[in-house]
Amino acid sequence: MSSVLSCKSTKMAELMENEVVRAFSTYAVIVVVKMLLMGPLTSYNRFARGSFSNEEDVARKSSEEKKQLLKTHPDVERVRRCHHNDLENIIPFVIVGLLYALTGPELSVALLHFRIFAGARIFHTIAYIGALPQPSRALSWVVGMLVTFSMAYRVLNTVLFL
Amino acid sequence: MSSVLSCKSTKMAELMENEVVRAFSTYAVIVVVKMLLMGPLTSYNRFARGSFSNEEDVARKSSEEKKQLLKTHPDVERVRRCHHNDLENIIPFVIVGLLYALTGPELSVALLHFRIFAGARIFHTIAYIGALPQPSRALSWVVGMLVTFSMAYRVLNTVLFL
Amino acid sequence: MSSVLSCKSTKMAELMENEVVRAFSTYAVIVVVKMLLMGPLTSYNRFARGSFSNEEDVARKSSEEKKQLLKTHPDVERVRRCHHNDLENIIPFVIVGLLYALTGPELSVALLHFRIFAGARIFHTIAYIGALPQPSRALSWVVGMLVTFSMAYRVLNTVLFL
Repeated sequence: MSSVLSCKSTKMAELMENEVVRAFSTYAVIVVVKMLLMGPLTSYNRFARGSFSNEEDVARKSSEEKKQLLKTHPDVERVRRCHHNDLENIIPFVIVGLLYALTGPELSVALLHFRIFAGARIFHTIAYIGALPQPSRALSWVVGMLVTFSMAYRVLNTVLFL
Repeated sequence: MSSVLSCKSTKMAELMENEVVRAFSTYAVIVVVKMLLMGPLTSYNRFARGSFSNEEDVARKSSEEKKQLLKTHPDVERVRRCHHNDLENIIPFVIVGLLYALTGPELSVALLHFRIFAGARIFHTIAYIGALPQPSRALSWVVGMLVTFSMAYRVLNTVLFL
Repeated sequence: MSSVLSCKSTKMAELMENEVVRAFSTYAVIVVVKMLLMGPLTSYNRFARGSFSNEEDVARKSSEEKKQLLKTHPDVERVRRCHHNDLENIIPFVIVGLLYALTGPELSVALLHFRIFAGARIFHTIAYIGALPQPSRALSWVVGMLVTFSMAYRVLNTVLFL
């Protein structure tokens, strides 16, 4: 593994030789891929529950069936709300996290931020899709947001230039 | 302040020593944090107006109350539309703005872009939440978008590689 | 053109001298601007179809007209769904793509990723707005997502640091 890495790193931008940037990249990709997977999960539920948004998605059905299939379904809407919450929280984490990584924080402190955020958001998805009793979902949402605020504070404190 | 900065900058990626990148980071964090705060504002309104989206959020209520609490409320929906508009406009600004900052624009020109955008979006939020008479909201939306288009033009003009 | 570039590049961060990063920047700006343009398209449809979301947007109308104008319209909702799908797919592409570009992939391989994604998403918009028969829209959505997954795999494979 390390020989592959050293071989590749000669072509890599210097930025990726920084361990904090590499850790950030790893966790950013993990949470973004998690977010992206909500798309196929929505699709799956649309077919499984028979709930579509577009006329052309049910073009081959009879007009009676169409009417039925173009209704919303609670399970589909739940996945969509979860996906939307990811957009609202994971993208800010990635943006602020990239700038944070560039301010050169301690690796251990940075890893703590990234790991807590990734854990909180994965748990948030489980709590949302599984409709776990509150405040499980609310807490994981707040924890993720606090991580982003903490990184935002460090960025402003380090590079403030108004 | 400057001594703290110089001390920290030894650990920072060189990128963050660039004043345009630092200015970008500052304004990007400000508008992203503003966007993130729409989440708690939605939550606050959900509780204040009694309007929730998920069964588990009202689990302890009687079935009569649940039905009432699971309805949408205009104030909650207004904050959500504002938040959604932020996602549609602030994230493109941050993406295009980062690439723009890397093309090495004049600091004064870059600051003009960042400041107008931040001002326009903060005013947009006030106009949206406060339901100010149009065209206040529409204008602030257009101004923010024009800033992003201007930066996009500079990026394409400088680094175009198809 | 090249003289302009070399003149500007002295001021540019070294990052932008990397051809993969320049190619990424070009395609990222193209797809983000495409996404941004869905905003004005929604606005246009709101006026053309007479379908608004906010009281203040129809303030000068009679109360009878207001009621009519505050209804949703299928054409407006279609553009909004298309815009929302862009947010869900284009932003992850840009985030993962930036990190991917920093891992120093072969230029030809990187260009292949960027071009396929941009083509797929432009076609997706045409298929969505034009309500083309399925599976045209579904396929372009899947192709775009596979490009992002492929880049995510490369990033994790190259810089993994948990």
